[in-house]
Order: sequence, then structure tokens, then C-alpha cells
Amino acid sequence: MHTPRRQISSIGVMGFGAFGRLMATHLQPHFALSVFDPGQPATADSSGKGLTPTDIAGIAACGLVILAVPVDQLPAALAALSPHLRAGAIVLDVGSVKIGPAIAMQAGLPEHVEIIGTHPLFGPQSGRNGISGLKIALCPIRGRSAWRIAAFLRKVLRLKVIMTTPDAHDREAAMVQGLTHLIAKILVRMEPLPRRMTTASFDLLMQATEMVRYDAPGVFLAIERANPHAKAVRDQFFDLAEEMRMLLENGHKSAPAKTSRNLATT
Amino acid sequence: MHTPRRQISSIGVMGFGAFGRLMATHLQPHFALSVFDPGQPATADSSGKGLTPTDIAGIAACGLVILAVPVDQLPAALAALSPHLRAGAIVLDVGSVKIGPAIAMQAGLPEHVEIIGTHPLFGPQSGRNGISGLKIALCPIRGRSAWRIAAFLRKVLRLKVIMTTPDAHDREAAMVQGLTHLIAKILVRMEPLPRRMTTASFDLLMQATEMVRYDAPGVFLAIERANPHAKAVRDQFFDLAEEMRMLLENGHKSAPAKTSRNLATT
Repeated sequence: MHTPRRQISSIGVMGFGAFGRLMATHLQPHFALSVFDPGQPATADSSGKGLTPTDIAGIAACGLVILAVPVDQLPAALAALSPHLRAGAIVLDVGSVKIGPAIAMQAGLPEHVEIIGTHPLFGPQSGRNGISGLKIALCPIRGRSAWRIAAFLRKVLRLKVIMTTPDAHDREAAMVQGLTHLIAKILVRMEPLPRRMTTASFDLLMQATEMVRYDAPGVFLAIERANPHAKAVRDQFFDLAEEMRMLLENGHKSAPAKTSRNLATT
Repeated sequence: MHTPRRQISSIGVMGFGAFGRLMATHLQPHFALSVFDPGQPATADSSGKGLTPTDIAGIAACGLVILAVPVDQLPAALAALSPHLRAGAIVLDVGSVKIGPAIAMQAGLPEHVEIIGTHPLFGPQSGRNGISGLKIALCPIRGRSAWRIAAFLRKVLRLKVIMTTPDAHDREAAMVQGLTHLIAKILVRMEPLPRRMTTASFDLLMQATEMVRYDAPGVFLAIERANPHAKAVRDQFFDLAEEMRMLLENGHKSAPAKTSRNLATT
């Protein structure tokens, strides 16, 4: 990585789903933005005003390439992109997990490009009223551009940047996102849930659920399955749930339980 | 219930835990308040500034008696209070469940007193910055005073009053409180949880947990065990959790699962 540092002027966004669109809104004032969605190339131009729809070569020609495809489509995107990339280009992904994409990018991208793993800790819902003050995790993988990009994210987009490693990221995300999405999935299946006679804490729980329930289905699977630390967190949650079930059914805390039961049936 | 309507000027609060104290703060500007805690009679005066500590007879002499003892201690409180109550007095409870207390109060209180079940849908945490705009459920049980009291709660304390029945209340509370407290109990046992690399939805989940985690232990048991509708809600939650566990372990959604797994191990 001894290519000279260039000012990034053009950004190519590969993948133009809900998150790609959110990103484009915030990057557009600062860069020449090209977009390409491998899934639906035809829709990229109609959806993004003022964006240049292009092909894979057009994306690869940019100084910075952002991979915003679902985590499970990353290997295919890397294979398509790789032959076109120029020396000194920077490639970053925005997936909810970081170990897998870091390995895939290191294996799939030529030696002459820099690699950064990022995880914007927000989505189309939580970022709909602006992203200033929200968080993004950054994992330098290859090259030194991560710090320059961190400075831009901090100073221009006003994000809180957390520098970390793929493993440390996935360990924390397994709890943060693993638990939120798991609980939200369960609660959504329990609908209709009360909306009128609610407590403040239930309202917060519902707000948390609203924020993730419309995420693309692949996000949940990426969080739960592509994160190698997710299973341990999930198992702990399920084990504690089972323990709680046993406690409440069998009444090991027999004294208050007995009194309550008497009261309910008096 | 043909006793003449009197203006309520004195309130006796029986039970002076965290919630009794919160209530006293808001009622004190409007009424002569007497407090008596059957559990620790000695501490009532030292904890409540400007309140009159009294005995069970002093409480019973008030126009309105508020039972703020834990749900499982309600039968004992009713037995102690009953012989002292005067005709036309109003007795209300503030428990998190309503079917059991309604039955207990109807069975345990003399015919010449009015009965109201209430459930303030807030606690020491959610009400610590004021209770204006928060919710309270009101169940008229015996007599017509509930509407007068509802008007006071609406106009003076600025609460949102929800008139309901014990059964309708417990049905909704089983979801609202049952789920919040159950999830909070599980999450608290998973501590330490991340505080830095968090998403907005995880932050909301943690806020919801913070609001209930310091509630008296009896509150959780009352919600889960003294509410006859709680078990069905809990069972549905646990069944859905188990279903989710199976889905994620056995990979019935095999296509994306396979791709993700390949990615994580590439």
C-alpha cells in the first residue's frame, strides 16, 4: 500500500436498496456519485435523483467503492468488481457483520486496493430524520485510508466514529443487534399488541421494534447467522428465557408465588 | 351506595414503598395526607416530609384510602383495615393487576364503602420527572366515585385516564407489562451489555429495561403470576422464541442460511 494518497472525488455505490439510498442522500452533496445495483440495474437511475447510473466498470473507476449489497451477495459482487478495480482505489462495505466480509474482501480483492469494513449503526428508520450524532463502526483492513475516512465521517457527516476490529465488532454486535432483532421478530409475531393502555417502558420496546421490523429480511439472517458470535448470545437468551419459564411455572420462589396464586383465585 | 357525596379532603395511604412515596409527592399539595406502612410503621414519618404518620385507624378515618401495599399483601391489609372503615369511605388500590385485587376488595371490605381499582401505568422510574401526560387505568368496582376521581386525575394531575374493567385491564397488562418485565429480566441477567457500540433501537431497549429493572421484586411476580392472562402471553412468547431458535439452528430457510454460512467460513 504505497500508492500516493489522492483526494477522493468520486464514489461508486454498488447496491441500491433502502440503505444505499439513505447513504446516497448524505454523500451526494460532497462527491460525484455513481450507482449500480446488480439486482436491478434498470431502477438505479429512476430512484436516485441527480445520481449517475452506471455499470460495474463505472463503479470500479471511482476513487472509493461502497459495497451496499446484502451480506450474502458480497462474494458475487466482489467477483464482478475485482477485475475492474484500479490501483489505489478504496473499497468498503457497510454490512451488519464484519468478520465474514473482511475475510471475503481480503480474499476477493486485488492487492493494489485498500479495504475498510464499516458498519453504520443505523438504518433507514433510525436515520430518517438525519444521521448527525448517530454511530458508525470502522475496521481498517488493508491500507491507511480508514483514518482519513473517519475524519470525513466525524467532521462532515457528524457521525460518532468507533474504530474497532472485525472480531471486536461482531462480538458487540452479536448482543446489540442480535438481541434487538430477535426480540423484535418475536414481538412482531405477537401482534396485535396493545397501543392504548401502555406503560412508558412498553412504548420504548415498541419504538425499538418499529425501528428494525421493516429492515430487509437478509439483515436479520446476516445478524443471526453470518455473525459467528451470534449463536452464543442467542443461546444465552433462549436459556435464560427457559429458566424464567421454569421459575414461573414450577414456582421455585414458592413463598410469594403461593400468596399471589391464592389472591388470584380468592 | 346511597351515601351522600362528600368532598374528599383527607387521604390515607397504606403502604409507603417507592410507589407510595411517588404518589404522596403528587397528592400532598391537594389533600391532608396520612401515611401508614404495615411493614415498617417507624419509617413512615422520617421518609415523608410534611406527612402525618398514623396507625390503621387514622388511615381508615380518611375519606379516601389508598392501598399501596404489594399485591400479595393486600388480603392482610384489607383484613386490618376493614373493621375501622366508615360508611361512604372510598377504598382504592394501585396494584399492577386488577382481577385479583377487585375480588379481594369486594370480598374483604364492608358493603358501606366504595371500591375502585386503579393501575397507574408508571412507576418510580418513568414518573421521576413528573407524571403529567402519563397514564392510569381506572376500574369502577362498587359505587360511583370512580368518575369523580377520574376527573381529578385528568384535570389536576394531568394524567391520561383509561376507564376499563379488571378483566380487560389484565388482558392488556398481560402483554404490556408481562412482556416488558419478562424481556427486562432476561436482559438484566445478560449484563454486562454493550454501552458504546449501540444502535438507536438497542438504546431504546436498554431504556425500557432501566425503567423496570429497579421495581420491587413483588411487582414482577404480581405481573406474571397474579394476572390470570399472563401465562398465555408468556407461553406465546416462549413458544415463538423456541420456534425462532429452531428456525435459526436447523435452517429451514435454507437458501440464505447456506450462503451466509459459506461467507462466514470462507
